[in-house]
Amino acid sequence: MYRTHTCGELRIANAGERVVLAGWIQRIRKMGGMSFVDLRDRYGITQLVVNDSKDSSLNEIVGKLGREFVIQASGRVVERSSKNSKIPTGDIEIETESVKILNGSLTPPFTIEDDTDGGEELRAKFRYLDLRRSPLKKAMELRHKTAQQVRNYLDSKGFLEIETPVLIKSTPEGARDFVVPSRMNPGEFYALPQSPQQLKQLLMVAGYDRYFQIVRCFRDEDLRADRQPEFTQIDCEMSFVEREDILNTFEGMMNTLFANLLDTGFDLEKKFKYHDEIKISGSFPRISYTDAMKYYGSDKPDIRFGMKISSIKQIAAGAGFSLFDSAEYVGGISVPGAAGYTRKQTDELTEWVKRPQIGAKGLVYIKLAEDGIKSSIDKFYTPDHLQKIADEMEAKSGDLVLILAGPEKKTLEMLGSLRIEMGNRLGLRNSDEYAPLWVYDFPLLEWDEETQRFYAMHHPFTSPKPEDLDNFFSTERDKIAKVSANAYDFVLNGTEIGGGSIRIHDPAIQNRMFEVLGFTKEEAEYRFGFLINAFRYGAPPHGGIAFGFDRLCALFGGQESIRDFIAFPKNNSGRDMMLEAPSRIDEAQMKELFLKSTH
Amino acid sequence: MYRTHTCGELRIANAGERVVLAGWIQRIRKMGGMSFVDLRDRYGITQLVVNDSKDSSLNEIVGKLGREFVIQASGRVVERSSKNSKIPTGDIEIETESVKILNGSLTPPFTIEDDTDGGEELRAKFRYLDLRRSPLKKAMELRHKTAQQVRNYLDSKGFLEIETPVLIKSTPEGARDFVVPSRMNPGEFYALPQSPQQLKQLLMVAGYDRYFQIVRCFRDEDLRADRQPEFTQIDCEMSFVEREDILNTFEGMMNTLFANLLDTGFDLEKKFKYHDEIKISGSFPRISYTDAMKYYGSDKPDIRFGMKISSIKQIAAGAGFSLFDSAEYVGGISVPGAAGYTRKQTDELTEWVKRPQIGAKGLVYIKLAEDGIKSSIDKFYTPDHLQKIADEMEAKSGDLVLILAGPEKKTLEMLGSLRIEMGNRLGLRNSDEYAPLWVYDFPLLEWDEETQRFYAMHHPFTSPKPEDLDNFFSTERDKIAKVSANAYDFVLNGTEIGGGSIRIHDPAIQNRMFEVLGFTKEEAEYRFGFLINAFRYGAPPHGGIAFGFDRLCALFGGQESIRDFIAFPKNNSGRDMMLEAPSRIDEAQMKELFLKSTH
Repeated sequence: MYRTHTCGELRIANAGERVVLAGWIQRIRKMGGMSFVDLRDRYGITQLVVNDSKDSSLNEIVGKLGREFVIQASGRVVERSSKNSKIPTGDIEIETESVKILNGSLTPPFTIEDDTDGGEELRAKFRYLDLRRSPLKKAMELRHKTAQQVRNYLDSKGFLEIETPVLIKSTPEGARDFVVPSRMNPGEFYALPQSPQQLKQLLMVAGYDRYFQIVRCFRDEDLRADRQPEFTQIDCEMSFVEREDILNTFEGMMNTLFANLLDTGFDLEKKFKYHDEIKISGSFPRISYTDAMKYYGSDKPDIRFGMKISSIKQIAAGAGFSLFDSAEYVGGISVPGAAGYTRKQTDELTEWVKRPQIGAKGLVYIKLAEDGIKSSIDKFYTPDHLQKIADEMEAKSGDLVLILAGPEKKTLEMLGSLRIEMGNRLGLRNSDEYAPLWVYDFPLLEWDEETQRFYAMHHPFTSPKPEDLDNFFSTERDKIAKVSANAYDFVLNGTEIGGGSIRIHDPAIQNRMFEVLGFTKEEAEYRFGFLINAFRYGAPPHGGIAFGFDRLCALFGGQESIRDFIAFPKNNSGRDMMLEAPSRIDEAQMKELFLKSTH
Repeated sequence: MYRTHTCGELRIANAGERVVLAGWIQRIRKMGGMSFVDLRDRYGITQLVVNDSKDSSLNEIVGKLGREFVIQASGRVVERSSKNSKIPTGDIEIETESVKILNGSLTPPFTIEDDTDGGEELRAKFRYLDLRRSPLKKAMELRHKTAQQVRNYLDSKGFLEIETPVLIKSTPEGARDFVVPSRMNPGEFYALPQSPQQLKQLLMVAGYDRYFQIVRCFRDEDLRADRQPEFTQIDCEMSFVEREDILNTFEGMMNTLFANLLDTGFDLEKKFKYHDEIKISGSFPRISYTDAMKYYGSDKPDIRFGMKISSIKQIAAGAGFSLFDSAEYVGGISVPGAAGYTRKQTDELTEWVKRPQIGAKGLVYIKLAEDGIKSSIDKFYTPDHLQKIADEMEAKSGDLVLILAGPEKKTLEMLGSLRIEMGNRLGLRNSDEYAPLWVYDFPLLEWDEETQRFYAMHHPFTSPKPEDLDNFFSTERDKIAKVSANAYDFVLNGTEIGGGSIRIHDPAIQNRMFEVLGFTKEEAEYRFGFLINAFRYGAPPHGGIAFGFDRLCALFGGQESIRDFIAFPKNNSGRDMMLEAPSRIDEAQMKELFLKSTH
């Protein structure tokens, strides 16, 4: 061992001890005939002191040192005269007796500090240096602890971690698979799993009634800002359960995480304040998809704040304002304390909702100011009528009512975006609070006009709600479209981080699902034959859930982007800038794989 | 929840309770107006009893049941009149009140019993049914527990589990990479990692001084009987350590596993007998590669038994027996108590060593029988001389001495094989014992006559022993060939299940390594540029180890084959017989990937 202690562990109680430390040089200062060296490792920083005039050979070595050199230093722990309360080792320093250079370093291309001067691309290329910075180190530690907590919780609940293969069969439905040519089976390809969905269902058929895996998944999609071609899931499945059994089990997991991730350097104690209010043993709120859309205009509502959407079509129609009279839907939100918004501010909000990302045609407002009601539609509505609308929305004096009208689903989604925007503007999306929520009873199917067929909203193994089976087996498209799925999402602060469903275990329902999705018997057999076959040999009732592990870690770390919670992420073109992957392979290898590039 | 209890948990103390169970039907018997149904789940088997004449509707349902049907049954726990001491639930049965069929089942293609009647291919195709059998269930549980123990141990030692990417860069050196065409980067490919070797070294450069991962690795090799194209490693790396620090850390891990895997249904208590003798806190034996070859003719000796190899060239030469006089090496083993072997038996042994797999030209024996020494070479040697040879080998009266002669390395390897064979024949390789062993100081390089170049025995990042650096930088091929690596293997019962090394952290030594391996600067830069670059920015001294997790689990489970310790293994052609993977992909997908098949 090159060291007796780490750079994070010495305290005043160690004063007088002879120690050996090893690490990287964070910085060197000269002051009053002394050299001060900050030595850094994963655990912290310890100050080394060298008396410049005492030992000329030691002094010579210190003279050669530079930033990020790796050294081994020995000496005696002494109490500091001027203590540094900002670091845990700040009460002591090392009276250095010898220094050995273990490795030199070029000057790093950016500073290894919390706030570095390096741009994103440079840091991606030198990821091993970026990973030396404290925020990334904390992210890696948080991720490790989260994984350990998840595993220990699920282990304690009787779940078995079972590894499923990475080289599987391509079953395209939804996103694109990455494929792997097989040299031993010329002309054939493996696929990398988008999720172990079918394999975990086979494990249920095999009788492993509580399965989990923290597992890598792959999706060859065009990458949006915060998507990765490979990502990690907490993947789970249970047999002989109903929805509430699953929700309760994973509320327990979330509670364990909330309770046990307090010492990760993210000041999580403060962050879990909201959680304390809803109590660790309590249930998380639940809302149906229909209500989530109706009240929040979103299937992943951020419930850290209110500002719910109200429908006012009934009360607003019939006053001769043709927009409201003709619209399928009229609704709005009441923004607390914003009645004082100026004309300029409401104009700017109008522009905001008219942006193509939102797509509204205009915005109607009612200001419940102290000196009376003002509105952009007071030509059509009497103050009394406006007050009635405001009352319907439970708006109070001082509030600003914002109203949109149009087709129901689209308008609700616009109001949902507007609600989030107003939450941001009013500072109601407190990053110190965590508001978990279950959303359930999603639509089972989505009709695609272009291909004139239904697509599964979740995947083709999601069970319809038992009460909707008549509609599911109906020949009328409208009835089929109305079927709800026994599916649920776990939402945290307006981000979906988990989703799952009770699966189909009845072969007749599964066959009907393939039929509804427009698969011929042969297609279904080719794509999902092994699963269809397995279901003939005693499939138990089962269901499961999968959580986005990268996203979960980022949320716990209080960050928007997942990239710093992945050790070696890829950029938006799916490239690893450090490894320079993907890359060309040589002709001999292509030949062995029976492949030719047409590029 | 479909059940109140599992099929493995009810005991006599539960008598009188009303319970609901769910599971699969193992078998049904009718006897004296009663039906007995064995209901099975992951946790055990519970007997349900139905009085055939009591409830006609219940009786009707029971009449429909068949093997592997999934049912839900409710009733009252009662004490059995004739108890079954073979199962933990054998004191009770369920007086069944109602049965609900949750799913039917076709008759399975083989019996779901410990000793099934299904052939290997059939079981591979119906893996989800094979996984219902108890031996596989126990294997999955053992694997889960082993993984948990490994993680908890390493976590307690300050290791961080850090996930490394699966889509990396192809760096062919040694086995073939699987590759993944990139749609977004036409003409370019990712590679699947053969191990995260370079990534974990980058993590050391990044300052994460204790890393581990239980990680999937990939090798596109022609598969031998017990190899898999994807396999799992316990992958570890540490900084600021020397060899002994690493060996001690992982002895600790093995001791934890030995101590804590006693309740997995494999009767491991008995199996760890040997281990108790060497004491849980004690060190595992260590042997150098040179001594391992000299005494055991193998770099992975099985030390559960002695029968060490002795060199007898000195004492045997000069008697006019030209085979021994001319051979580079003469050596043998002394087989205890086998002096009574008949001529037929020694002839058979001679045939055995002459098989092409061993390749010896012949076998010399000396029988130390009670009625005097007998030997196949008594034409050339006096009884006195033979006795001297036997004495040199510490053979005792009653032993059978077996001698081979030829080129040193090859003959030692033959003797090593013969030793294992004799150990098997004499029942000395006791499957109830575990004999761990470290082998260290392997050769660094191997000269290949065909390509006229050196290859790295381990990989190009393995450090030479410091005392061999002069030879390493020498221009003479003989001197370079003699350099030892600071590498070590963990061997258990004659199987290598772990291997690692202290790595090179000095850029000058790393460059010399690339030079010795015949890489030009450009080649080295293209293949390992990111690592060479990283080493310019302060690489700490570091080293690590990786264990074959599949193999480790199989050994703990007392099995030779890893296949039953992998949930969904592939066959010898790399095919998943259940998924029918790999398979053809459609032309559209090939086009998107800019690929054409030439097959």
